Amino acid sequence: MTPTATTHDTLLAALRDALGPRHVLTEPDDLAPYVTETRKLFTGSALATLRPGSTQEVAFAVRACTQAGLSVVPLGGNTGLTGAGIPQGGVVLSLERMTRLRAIDPVDATITVEAGMILQDVQDAAERAGLLFPLSYASRGSARIGGGISTNAGGIAVVAYGNARDLVLGLEVVLADGRVWNGLRALRKDNAGYDLKQLFIGSEGTLGIVTAAVLKLYPKPRSTSVAFVGLDSARAALDLFVFLRTRMDRDLTAFEYLPPFALGIVLRHVPGTVQPLAGAHGAYALIEAASARPDSDMREALESALGEALAQGLIADATIGASGAQNTALWRLREGIPEAQTREGASIKHDVSVPLSRLPDFLEQAGAACMAEMPGLRPCGFGHFGDGNIHFNLSQPPGMPAADFLAEWGRFNRIVHDIVHGFGGSIAAEHGVGLIKREELERYGDPVGLDLMRKLKDALDPEQLLNPGKIIARRVAGPISEP
Amino acid sequence: MTPTATTHDTLLAALRDALGPRHVLTEPDDLAPYVTETRKLFTGSALATLRPGSTQEVAFAVRACTQAGLSVVPLGGNTGLTGAGIPQGGVVLSLERMTRLRAIDPVDATITVEAGMILQDVQDAAERAGLLFPLSYASRGSARIGGGISTNAGGIAVVAYGNARDLVLGLEVVLADGRVWNGLRALRKDNAGYDLKQLFIGSEGTLGIVTAAVLKLYPKPRSTSVAFVGLDSARAALDLFVFLRTRMDRDLTAFEYLPPFALGIVLRHVPGTVQPLAGAHGAYALIEAASARPDSDMREALESALGEALAQGLIADATIGASGAQNTALWRLREGIPEAQTREGASIKHDVSVPLSRLPDFLEQAGAACMAEMPGLRPCGFGHFGDGNIHFNLSQPPGMPAADFLAEWGRFNRIVHDIVHGFGGSIAAEHGVGLIKREELERYGDPVGLDLMRKLKDALDPEQLLNPGKIIARRVAGPISEP
Repeated sequence: MTPTATTHDTLLAALRDALGPRHVLTEPDDLAPYVTETRKLFTGSALATLRPGSTQEVAFAVRACTQAGLSVVPLGGNTGLTGAGIPQGGVVLSLERMTRLRAIDPVDATITVEAGMILQDVQDAAERAGLLFPLSYASRGSARIGGGISTNAGGIAVVAYGNARDLVLGLEVVLADGRVWNGLRALRKDNAGYDLKQLFIGSEGTLGIVTAAVLKLYPKPRSTSVAFVGLDSARAALDLFVFLRTRMDRDLTAFEYLPPFALGIVLRHVPGTVQPLAGAHGAYALIEAASARPDSDMREALESALGEALAQGLIADATIGASGAQNTALWRLREGIPEAQTREGASIKHDVSVPLSRLPDFLEQAGAACMAEMPGLRPCGFGHFGDGNIHFNLSQPPGMPAADFLAEWGRFNRIVHDIVHGFGGSIAAEHGVGLIKREELERYGDPVGLDLMRKLKDALDPEQLLNPGKIIARRVAGPISEP
Repeated sequence: MTPTATTHDTLLAALRDALGPRHVLTEPDDLAPYVTETRKLFTGSALATLRPGSTQEVAFAVRACTQAGLSVVPLGGNTGLTGAGIPQGGVVLSLERMTRLRAIDPVDATITVEAGMILQDVQDAAERAGLLFPLSYASRGSARIGGGISTNAGGIAVVAYGNARDLVLGLEVVLADGRVWNGLRALRKDNAGYDLKQLFIGSEGTLGIVTAAVLKLYPKPRSTSVAFVGLDSARAALDLFVFLRTRMDRDLTAFEYLPPFALGIVLRHVPGTVQPLAGAHGAYALIEAASARPDSDMREALESALGEALAQGLIADATIGASGAQNTALWRLREGIPEAQTREGASIKHDVSVPLSRLPDFLEQAGAACMAEMPGLRPCGFGHFGDGNIHFNLSQPPGMPAADFLAEWGRFNRIVHDIVHGFGGSIAAEHGVGLIKREELERYGDPVGLDLMRKLKDALDPEQLLNPGKIIARRVAGPISEP
C-alpha cells in the first residue's frame, strides 16, 4: 500500500485519539531532537514522532502505521552511535514515556522494567534492593534500557557479567503487525521451544519493538578494588590479563586498555585528572576486582596478585586505589578518553573485536597501517581489552582541517576492517551496525549468514516496515546486492 | 516431491559413493540402535542411518536427502530424554564419526570441537590445557556435544556457568538445503548483525544441523568444596540458597535439592552410599563451592558460611567433604537418584522450572495434588534448585503394576504442568520438547510465540524436512492446530 496525504491525515487523527494529541508530534521543531543523533553524523526525517505510554498503545501505533504502509523506527535515549535510531521517513516511536519499574524480586534476583527506563535508574533500583544490575556504559544517565537490549550493549563489566544478551531472562515485544509477544519469563532454565527473545536482542528494532524486559540481578559487591598498571606493551597487557583471569578468577570484573596517547590526552584535556604512575610506560591497563563475599578483601587480593605479576616481570608499575574516591579517579582516566579525544580534534572510530590472542597483533598492525597511510595521524586503540573489544579510534593529524580528515573515514574503515576480518574478528563489536556499518556488514559478512538474516527479516517483517534499512538492506530479487 | 523406491535406491547409491558403503546403514539390525531411545518410550523407523565423517559429507547428505524429499533426523549420543532424536521415517544422520578436536587455545580460553565429540572428552581436553569446560550432566560419558548444544543442555553447574547456550561462542551449521553456515567465531563481543547461532542452540535439529562449535573455557578450580546439608523444608532450602548466593557470590557452583524420599531410595539401592548426617530432616541440599584463586580455601569459606547459616537457624545440620573422595561420595547421593528411582519401580517424570521464589510452593502444591490423585504415590521432586529447575518425578505406589501406573502419565502431566504454568514456569526446563512435550507446548505456549516458532521453522526449513514433528507440529492452513 502506498500511503497518501489523506491516509496520513486519517492515521494521525487516529493516533492522536489513541495516544493523546500531546504524544503525536509533527512540528519540525518538535521532531528535530528525534531525527538527529548525538554525533550529528546522520539526520533523518519523519512524518511524526509517537510517544505511546503503554504496551497497548505501542501495539496500536505499530498496527496503525504498518497497516498504512508507514515504517516505524523505535527510539530509546538516542545515545546510539550507528544511526540505528534515525528514521528515513515513516514515524519515530519513542519509548521515553514507558519508564515504569514493573517489579523487582530480591529472591528471584530479577527486575522487570519497561523499555524506556533510563539505565542509571535500573541500576539504582537494583541497588536499593541490595543487588547489582551490572550493565553499564558511559551514556548510562540518558541511555534507555530498551536501547541497550535492542543493541546487545556491552560496556565496562562484560568480563564478569557478559553483554546485555546475557542479562535478559524475558522480553515483551510488539511485532510488525501490532501483536504483542509476552515472553516476560523469570526463569533460569527454559527450553520450551525456540528461545524467541534471542531474535529481538541485538536486532536493533528491525524484527520487533522491545517494550519490557525481565533482567538478571547479581549480589552487590561489598568490596571493590581498582588498580592502574603500567606495562611494556599490548603483549604484556595480554599476558597480564591471562594471568589475572586465573589468579582472580570470577572476581576480575574489568580489564580496560589505554595506549600512552590516550592517557596523555586525558591528562591534558580532562579537568582534575592526575598522572597515576611515576614513569612513562608502553601501555596501561585499568583493572577492577569485586566480590560480595564478606570474607574477601579485594584490595588485599588484587595487591597480592599484582605483586606476583610484578615479581614475574608481567608489569612495570602499579597503583591501587585506597578509597572509593581514588577508585573513581582511576576510572576517570579510562572514561575520560572519548571526551579528551573530542577536544583533541576530529576522530575516525572503529568499534571492533578480535580473539583475545590476536589483540597485540591487531593493535600493532592496524596502528602501523593507519600511520603509514597518513603522516601525523595518531591511533588511539583503547577499551574493553578483556573482551577482545577495542575502540580503534584515529585522532586527526594536528592542524589538518577536520572535514578533510573525516572525508577519509571510508579509506580507514577499509584498512582497519580488513585487518580485523583477517584475524577472524568483528567489525561491529558492541555498538551494532545501524546505518553506519550496513555496507561493511555486506562486505565482510558470510554470504550464507547474510541470507539467513534476510530470511529472518522477511519472516518477521515481510513488509520491511520495522526500522527499515538498518543492519541489512532490503531483500532484492536475484543475487544478494544493495538495491 | 514424493520419494519413490527408485529415487531411494539412486539416493542411497549416491550416499554410499560419497560417505563410503560402511557409513550408509540399511539393515534392520544395524538401524535398531539408531531408532530406539534409552528409556524405550519411543521407537522410530528410518530408511537408513548415515554416518558422515566431515562437514562436507554432512552437507552432501543433507542436500541429497532433502532434494529427494526425505527427512533428516540428526543424532548425537542418543542420550536424550524427549524422543527428539527418534526418526519417523526418512534418514538418521549420526554425528558419531565427527569427533575431532579442531583447536584449543589457552589464551582465548576457547575450544573448537566437532559435534560428535563425547562431552567427557571435551571436559578432558580442557583439563589437559589447564582449563575447565563446565557443562556437565549424568550422561557425559556417552552424550555428544552437538546434542548438548542442540538441546541447550543444563546440568549441574548452571548456577555459576549457565546453560549450554551461555557456553557457545560460535557454530558451524548445515542448513536444510545443504549449505554450510560458518559461524565459528571466537569472540566475546560481536554485534555484526543478528546473532544467528542462537537459532540453532536449543532448537533440537529442527532448523539446522550443528557440525562444530567454538566453546568457552574457564579457569580450572584449584579448590573445590562440597557440603551436604539437612534442612527443615524446601522453604528453608530457598532461604539458604539466597543466603549463599550473596555469601559465596560467584564461588557458589552448585545447589542441588533432595527430598527425604530421594535420599532414602539412594541409600537403599545405590551400593556404597552411606547416610551423610546423623538425624533425619525435612529436606536436603548438596552444595558446591569452587575457585581458581590460589588464596581462596573453599573448604574454609564454605565451612564459615554454613556456620553462619547454622547460627542463623537456616540449616539444621551439615557435613563438608574432607577430601576429593568424600566430595565424590556426597555427589553420589545426588547423582544416584535416577538409578535408585529406577530400582524403586516405574516413574512418571517432569522436567520443569519455576521462578526461584515459587519453588517451595510448587513442591508443596504439586506433591499434595499428585498424592491426592493416587494413594500410595511417592513424589520425588529433586535437582537443580539453584536454577529453579526441579525433576518432579513420581514413583509408583508399591505393588502397582508398572504399566498401569505409566498409563496415567498424561493425567499427572496435566496436574503438574497446570501448577507449573500457573507459577509462570516452564514445562520443559532443560531436557527440551522433542516428541514427548510437543502437545504440552501447544497447550501452554503463548499463541503469538507458537506462531513465531512456526514462522522460524518455515523460514529455515520450508519443506519441513529437518527433524520434522519435533518441538512444533507442521504448520497447517487456517488456525493453529495439530494436523
